[in-house]
Parts: sequence; C-alpha cells; structure tokens
Amino acid sequence: MIIIGELINSTRKKVGEAVRNQDVAYVQELARKQEAAGASMLDVNGGVAGKEIEYLQWLVNIVQEVSDTPLTLDSSDPAALRAAIPLCKHRPMINSITDEPARIAAVLPLAKEYKTKVVALCMSEAGPPSGVDDRIATACRLVDRLTSEGVALDDIYVDACVLPISTGPEHGKSLMEGIRQIMARYPGVHTSAGLSNVSFGVPVRKLMNQVFLMLLMAHGLDAAIADPLDRQLMANIRAAEALLGRDEFCGEYLQAFRRGLLEITPAG
Amino acid sequence: MIIIGELINSTRKKVGEAVRNQDVAYVQELARKQEAAGASMLDVNGGVAGKEIEYLQWLVNIVQEVSDTPLTLDSSDPAALRAAIPLCKHRPMINSITDEPARIAAVLPLAKEYKTKVVALCMSEAGPPSGVDDRIATACRLVDRLTSEGVALDDIYVDACVLPISTGPEHGKSLMEGIRQIMARYPGVHTSAGLSNVSFGVPVRKLMNQVFLMLLMAHGLDAAIADPLDRQLMANIRAAEALLGRDEFCGEYLQAFRRGLLEITPAG
Repeated sequence: MIIIGELINSTRKKVGEAVRNQDVAYVQELARKQEAAGASMLDVNGGVAGKEIEYLQWLVNIVQEVSDTPLTLDSSDPAALRAAIPLCKHRPMINSITDEPARIAAVLPLAKEYKTKVVALCMSEAGPPSGVDDRIATACRLVDRLTSEGVALDDIYVDACVLPISTGPEHGKSLMEGIRQIMARYPGVHTSAGLSNVSFGVPVRKLMNQVFLMLLMAHGLDAAIADPLDRQLMANIRAAEALLGRDEFCGEYLQAFRRGLLEITPAG
Repeated sequence: MIIIGELINSTRKKVGEAVRNQDVAYVQELARKQEAAGASMLDVNGGVAGKEIEYLQWLVNIVQEVSDTPLTLDSSDPAALRAAIPLCKHRPMINSITDEPARIAAVLPLAKEYKTKVVALCMSEAGPPSGVDDRIATACRLVDRLTSEGVALDDIYVDACVLPISTGPEHGKSLMEGIRQIMARYPGVHTSAGLSNVSFGVPVRKLMNQVFLMLLMAHGLDAAIADPLDRQLMANIRAAEALLGRDEFCGEYLQAFRRGLLEITPAG
C-alpha cells in the first residue's frame, strides 16, 4: 500500500502558521515523523494565498533536508508546480490533474516534461461525479488522455473522488464500484483516495477514515493520501495487506508486530 | 449487520469450566453483556464431552432467563440439537449444516420440522474448500438442497468457510470473491463468517479479525459470528454500515456516537 502522508498541508491551521512563520523545525518534524511511520511519499501543500510559489519551493527544500521520501506536490497553481518540480531530488507526483481543459493545459505539459507521477482526480467542469458511470467515464477520459500523451499507467494514480458520506448514503458504494472497475479496465494503473473527505460533517472522523480505507482496499485501492501517524490506520493496513494476499506468509505483518506497531487498543 | 455473539462457547476454557460447574451467574453475565453490546443472536455451545445434550439444554434455559435475544445452537451432536430446539422461546438458528451426507441427514429434518434458521457451512466430505470455485460449488449444493426442501433463503446463512491466513495468502481473497458471488447468485440469502478462524497462528488476532470483517462486509457479508464485546469491532461495523449505504443519513452511527460507543483509541 502506498501511503502519501498528508500532514504538511498549509490549509491545516498549525501548518499554515508554520509556513507563514517559516518555522523550519515544525515542518521538518512532520516530515521525519511521517517518514518514520511508514509514509511512501510526503504531500506538500504551500497554499497560502499570494505566496504559493515561494512557499512550495521552501517546503520542498526544507523537507528534503531531513527526508529522502519522494514528494507529492499539491497545488492548484501551475506556476508553483513549475517552480517546485525541478527542486525535487526524486521524481515527484503532481496532485492533481483533473478532467478540466484549463487544468489539463496547465499540468499535462509539466507531467510530460518532467516525467512526474500524477494524481488523476475524477473532477470535470460539471463538478464532482454523481454516480458510478460518471466516475468511470471521467476516469477513462483522464487515463486515455494521459497515456495517449505518453504518461505510463504506472505513473497514474486515479482518485475517483471521495465525497462526504453525510451528503449521500450512496457515495461510498459508488466509489468502491468505481475503483473496482477502473482497476479491472487498466491493469497496472493505481487508484488513490483522499480519505478524509468521506468523514466531513460526521463525528469520530478518524474511525470513518480508517474503516473507509479498508472497504476501498477490498475493492483494489492501492494508494491513499492519509495520516500515517494514525497508528490504528497503519495497523489496519498491515492486517489488510496480509488478508488481501499482498503480504505472503504475513512477513510484513509479523515484522510490524515485532516493532510494536500493531497493538493499539486496550483489551475488551 | 447481524452479529452472532460467540462468547458462550464451552470450547473456551473459562466457559467450559463454568458449564461443568453449572455456574449460572457466569454464563448469564456473558449473555447480558453481549446483548447490551448489540448482539443480534447469541451462540450457545455446550460441547463438553459426554454431556452435550444436558449442557446445551441447561445453557438455553439459563440464558433465556436473562436475555430475550434469539439463540444459535452450536453443536455437532444432532441429539443435543433435537433436545434444545423445543426449549427456545424464539425460532433458533442451527450452527451448522454442511455438505456432508451424514450431517444433512441429521440436521435437515430438524431445520424443516422446527423451521429454524441454519448456518450452511461450506465443508464437504473432502474437507474445507480449496479455492473460489470449490467454495461456490459447495455453497450452491447446500443452498439448492435446503431451498428444495422448503427452507427459505432468508433463513439460510452461508458460511463460505474462513481459513487461517497463516496457512495460505490466497484464502482471504478466495473467501471474499466467494461471498460476492454467492450474494449475487441468491438474492435474499445471507452470508456469515466465523471470523476468528482467519487469525489462527498470527499475533494480535483481534486486529486481524476486525480488519477481515471490514473486507468481507465490503463484499456483501451481512452476518458474523464474532465477539460483540470488542468495542473496536463494533465501532468499525457502525462506520462500515454508514459507508456501505446501509445506514441512511448515518442515523445509527450518530446514535452510537451519542452513546459513547465510537471513540476507542487515544488520539495520535
């Protein structure tokens, strides 16, 4: 499972403050902790109004001082992406391209020029998808466009668009079925999910996020933008990998056990 | 989700002792606690060698003194089932019938005579199933036989046979796919799972059981023989029901939250 650590995100209050105050130690600690907890990539978002180009570059530089984990550059501003990509030591991921002409025109050339990985978010000019067919149609348009331009399937992470379950009881099943069909249709492509959107507006969001990830993994999801410091989430992932046949002889599970990473809850 | 509380089982050391000592208070406490925690049925197993007929009747009687939850009679001895069924206040479930001629000859007449519910365990004379096709073939034989004899689909709980993941990395996926196909083939039938078998031989079994249930629910499982006193398991189920569209507007989830049932783990 590819876990993209979500914590270095300037839209989170404390991180936004740290970025504005150029608090190197705070951001580097978030990077170190997520790496130690098993993040496969680190998302960096410098979305502070007016200074995004400067801040995203700053984040890339200071995170790379303490971490060797590849970065996911998370920005709605193509100029910020263009400035930050060349600074990355490892081939980064762009988060994200959508099925909107302006976004494709801005992001696709970057993905091609720098051979980045890319999150392909199922969002069109009409907004987020409303059901399964809509999701799959948008995913197919995106994947077909990207591959026709030379992007490898292995570099595409389809995010079939997580919507809050509080806004419609059908959203969860629709996403699961979408993931299943996308994975079947494009062998070798990845699917990812911005987990925490699902729990917007309900209490005990962590629980919802943890359980949703299990349900999505059951349908083939192999990446997620999530909080690697959530010990229960990470322990669940390790169990799920074994149960889904992705961890032969439970080797990784047993290793995590020996490192004390699996025992979270008190008995009873 | 139908949770069949598994704790009143004489093969568990303390329960076996309580049954041999006719410790009414101990068994009744287990019944009360499981009922309070949300069990839909209570499994009772009096499998102490030589005295199973007597003990199963005793269990049924003392549990019913304190609980109004329907019972699942769990016995390999048809004579114990025959003696216990008429004592049940509510229509019980028999756990289990298998695809073995001797077991069918012994259990099917009871299921028909008393119109019980029945767990149809995918186990044949050749032993447990080895893969998906085998599972589904055994399930179909069992369901077709039961329905041809007049048992309603709604009274059949197919247990597609949980095998320890430590004995084969493919067992989990095979069961999930089996459940999906059985639910699609027989609309109205139930699928159930004896969860804890999956974690035999690995550490932190509760974690494995919790996660496995989520993966199975994602494939349509609607019943499980499990420990309702596992707060994390029950909280996970409530989140999964909402995420799978079985809890419109998250009503049950919010109610569980207000009752303090969802917050299990410390933050971080």
